[in-house]
Amino acid sequence: MNFIAAAIAVGLGALGAAFGNGMIVKSTVESIARQPEAANKLQTTMFVGVGIVEVVPLAATVIAFLIMFS
Amino acid sequence: MNFIAAAIAVGLGALGAAFGNGMIVKSTVESIARQPEAANKLQTTMFVGVGIVEVVPLAATVIAFLIMFS
Amino acid sequence: MNFIAAAIAVGLGALGAAFGNGMIVKSTVESIARQPEAANKLQTTMFVGVGIVEVVPLAATVIAFLIMFS
Amino acid sequence: MNFIAAAIAVGLGALGAAFGNGMIVKSTVESIARQPEAANKLQTTMFVGVGIVEVVPLAATVIAFLIMFS
Amino acid sequence: MNFIAAAIAVGLGALGAAFGNGMIVKSTVESIARQPEAANKLQTTMFVGVGIVEVVPLAATVIAFLIMFS
Amino acid sequence: MNFIAAAIAVGLGALGAAFGNGMIVKSTVESIARQPEAANKLQTTMFVGVGIVEVVPLAATVIAFLIMFS
Amino acid sequence: MNFIAAAIAVGLGALGAAFGNGMIVKSTVESIARQPEAANKLQTTMFVGVGIVEVVPLAATVIAFLIMFS
Amino acid sequence: MNFIAAAIAVGLGALGAAFGNGMIVKSTVESIARQPEAANKLQTTMFVGVGIVEVVPLAATVIAFLIMFS
Amino acid sequence: MNFIAAAIAVGLGALGAAFGNGMIVKSTVESIARQPEAANKLQTTMFVGVGIVEVVPLAATVIAFLIMFS
Amino acid sequence: MNFIAAAIAVGLGALGAAFGNGMIVKSTVESIARQPEAANKLQTTMFVGVGIVEVVPLAATVIAFLIMFS
Amino acid sequence: MNFIAAAIAVGLGALGAAFGNGMIVKSTVESIARQPEAANKLQTTMFVGVGIVEVVPLAATVIAFLIMFS
Amino acid sequence: MNFIAAAIAVGLGALGAAFGNGMIVKSTVESIARQPEAANKLQTTMFVGVGIVEVVPLAATVIAFLIMFS
Amino acid sequence: MNFIAAAIAVGLGALGAAFGNGMIVKSTVESIARQPEAANKLQTTMFVGVGIVEVVPLAATVIAFLIMFS
Amino acid sequence: MNFIAAAIAVGLGALGAAFGNGMIVKSTVESIARQPEAANKLQTTMFVGVGIVEVVPLAATVIAFLIMFS
Repeated sequence: MNFIAAAIAVGLGALGAAFGNGMIVKSTVESIARQPEAANKLQTTMFVGVGIVEVVPLAATVIAFLIMFS
Repeated sequence: MNFIAAAIAVGLGALGAAFGNGMIVKSTVESIARQPEAANKLQTTMFVGVGIVEVVPLAATVIAFLIMFS
Repeated sequence: MNFIAAAIAVGLGALGAAFGNGMIVKSTVESIARQPEAANKLQTTMFVGVGIVEVVPLAATVIAFLIMFS
Repeated sequence: MNFIAAAIAVGLGALGAAFGNGMIVKSTVESIARQPEAANKLQTTMFVGVGIVEVVPLAATVIAFLIMFS
Repeated sequence: MNFIAAAIAVGLGALGAAFGNGMIVKSTVESIARQPEAANKLQTTMFVGVGIVEVVPLAATVIAFLIMFS
Repeated sequence: MNFIAAAIAVGLGALGAAFGNGMIVKSTVESIARQPEAANKLQTTMFVGVGIVEVVPLAATVIAFLIMFS
Repeated sequence: MNFIAAAIAVGLGALGAAFGNGMIVKSTVESIARQPEAANKLQTTMFVGVGIVEVVPLAATVIAFLIMFS
Repeated sequence: MNFIAAAIAVGLGALGAAFGNGMIVKSTVESIARQPEAANKLQTTMFVGVGIVEVVPLAATVIAFLIMFS
Repeated sequence: MNFIAAAIAVGLGALGAAFGNGMIVKSTVESIARQPEAANKLQTTMFVGVGIVEVVPLAATVIAFLIMFS
Repeated sequence: MNFIAAAIAVGLGALGAAFGNGMIVKSTVESIARQPEAANKLQTTMFVGVGIVEVVPLAATVIAFLIMFS
Repeated sequence: MNFIAAAIAVGLGALGAAFGNGMIVKSTVESIARQPEAANKLQTTMFVGVGIVEVVPLAATVIAFLIMFS
Repeated sequence: MNFIAAAIAVGLGALGAAFGNGMIVKSTVESIARQPEAANKLQTTMFVGVGIVEVVPLAATVIAFLIMFS
Repeated sequence: MNFIAAAIAVGLGALGAAFGNGMIVKSTVESIARQPEAANKLQTTMFVGVGIVEVVPLAATVIAFLIMFS
Repeated sequence: MNFIAAAIAVGLGALGAAFGNGMIVKSTVESIARQPEAANKLQTTMFVGVGIVEVVPLAATVIAFLIMFS
């Protein structure tokens, strides 16, 4: 039953993180293609954004590892 | 059964936070690409926004950790 | 069984709050990018809006904490 | 079993209220950005609207608290 | 089991009422922004509309309270 | 078990009625904003429409009350 | 168990009828706003249409009442 | 158990018939508003269409009544 | 248990047939409104199409009746 | 239990076949309305297409009949 | 239990194959209507495509028959 | 229980493969209709693409056969 | 129970891989049709992309085979 | 039960990673087709993006392998 819990936690986290980050990187790529000269500013915003998005999914991953080794 | 509860709490929180933040950062990136001179004002709004969005998901994470260590 | 209930309450609350606030902040960012001179008025409306949106999810969080410590 | 019921009531209420209010505030922000001179009239309508939207979710919250303390 | 029933009734009612009213108020706000001089007529229609929309969700709330105190 | 049945009946009815009526009132508001001089004709159609839409949801509400008091 | 069956029958019927009729009345309102001089012809078609749409949901309501009183 | 079966049969049938017919009548109303002089031809097609759409849902209703009285 | 099977078979069949036919008749009505002189050719195609669409749902109905009387 | 299996097989098959064929016939009708002189070529392609689409749903129907009479 | 398995295999296969093939044939019909002189090349591509799409659903059908007669 | 597993494996694989390949072939057909002179290059890309898409669904089919004969 | 696990792993992997790769190849085909002279560069990006997409689904396939032979 | 957990973890991870990466690579391919001279900058962003997206799904894969060999 513990393993199921770890799988649910990291699975939903992976689903959320992949979707959220994919959405951000997608719009960054399209924006760079539209305005190549603003690439640095856009990439900075992208890195900040994916850092923020990863907070809770990483907590989910941590909880999953905690469940694994307890 | 506790672990399942922690997994559900942090999993739904991660899903929500990643989707909400992804939506915000995405529109920020696209808006900066459309108006590079308003980047500072947009990033400020973005940081305020992701801070607000993270409130309840972080509470979910806290509750998940509380469930883990009780 | 209590923990499951707390997880459901705070999880659905986090999902709703993140989605609702993300929608508001997203449109605020796009509106500021379209009309930078109306930024103050838009941010005021945004803060009022996210305050209203958070009411019921915060009640859900409170109920989750009540369930945790009872 | 009581706690599960309270969680369902306040969780669905939070989901609904956050989505409904988010939709209203979003369109208000976009409308103010399109017509800044009509901001007062739009905000009045917004406050009336979110007041109406909150009626049934608040009843759900009240019922959840009633379930909690009974 | 009674509490679960009350939660389902008021939860679905809150979901429906919030979505329906949100949809109405949203279009009212956008319509006022497009035609500020028709604001009175639009608000009258809005109040009639939200009154009609609330009929069955309020019945759901009443039924939920009936279940609570029986 | 009776209460669950009443909750399902009135819950689905509230969901349907709120969505259907919301859709009608929304289009009425937008149509009045587009043609203010046809407001009377549009409101008449709206009242007839919401009356028709409410038929089966009200039957669901009646059945729910019948289940409650039997 | 009978009451659950009646609730499912009338609930799904209410959902379907409200959605179908809402769709019809919505398009009628928008069409009258676009061509006010064809209002009579459109309303006639609307009444015929909602009559047709209500056939099976009303049968569902009848079956629900039959289940109630048997 | 029989009543549940009748409820499922007539419920799904009502959902399908209401959605299918709503779709047809909706497009008929919009088409008459676009070409009022072709109203007769369109209504004829509409009647044929709703007749065809009702075939299987009516069989579902018949089966539901058969289940009711057996 | 037999009746549940018949209900599922005819219910899914009715859902599919109503949706598929509704889609066909809808496009036929809109096409006749766009080109009234091609009405005969379009209606012929429509009749052939709804005949083809009804094949498997009618088999589902037949199977449901077979289950009913066995 | 056999009847449930037959119902699932023919039900999913009917859902798929009706949706797939409805999609094909719909586009054929709209294409004939756009280019009436290519009606023969389009109908030929349509017949080939619905023949191909029906292969697996008919196998599902055959399997359902096999389950019925075994 | 075997029959349920066969029904799931052939049912999901029929759903997939009908949807995939319907999508292909639909675009072929619309493309022929747009460029009648490229009909041969388009039909060749269509036949190759539906052949490829049918591979795994036919394997599902074969597995379903294997389950039936074992 | 083995047969259910084989049915799930090949069923989900068929759903995925049919949807993925349908998407590819659809865009190929539309692209050939738009640029008939690039047909060879597009078909080559299509064959490579469907080969790649089929990898994991074919593994699912292989696993299903392995489950069947073990 | 092992076989069910293998079926879920490879089934979800196949669903994901087929959808992700289908999305990539589809956009590649449409892009080549729009700019035939950039075909090499686009195909290189496509191969890199499908290689990246396949990583986790192949891991799922490997896990499924590991479950099969353990 | 362990194998089910591993299957859920790697399955949801594969679904998320394939969808997220597919979204990124798709927009990269379309952006290169629109601006071939920015291909290097776009591919760099793409590689960074897919690296970020893969973080949590790879953690899910690692957890799945840990569950397999424990």
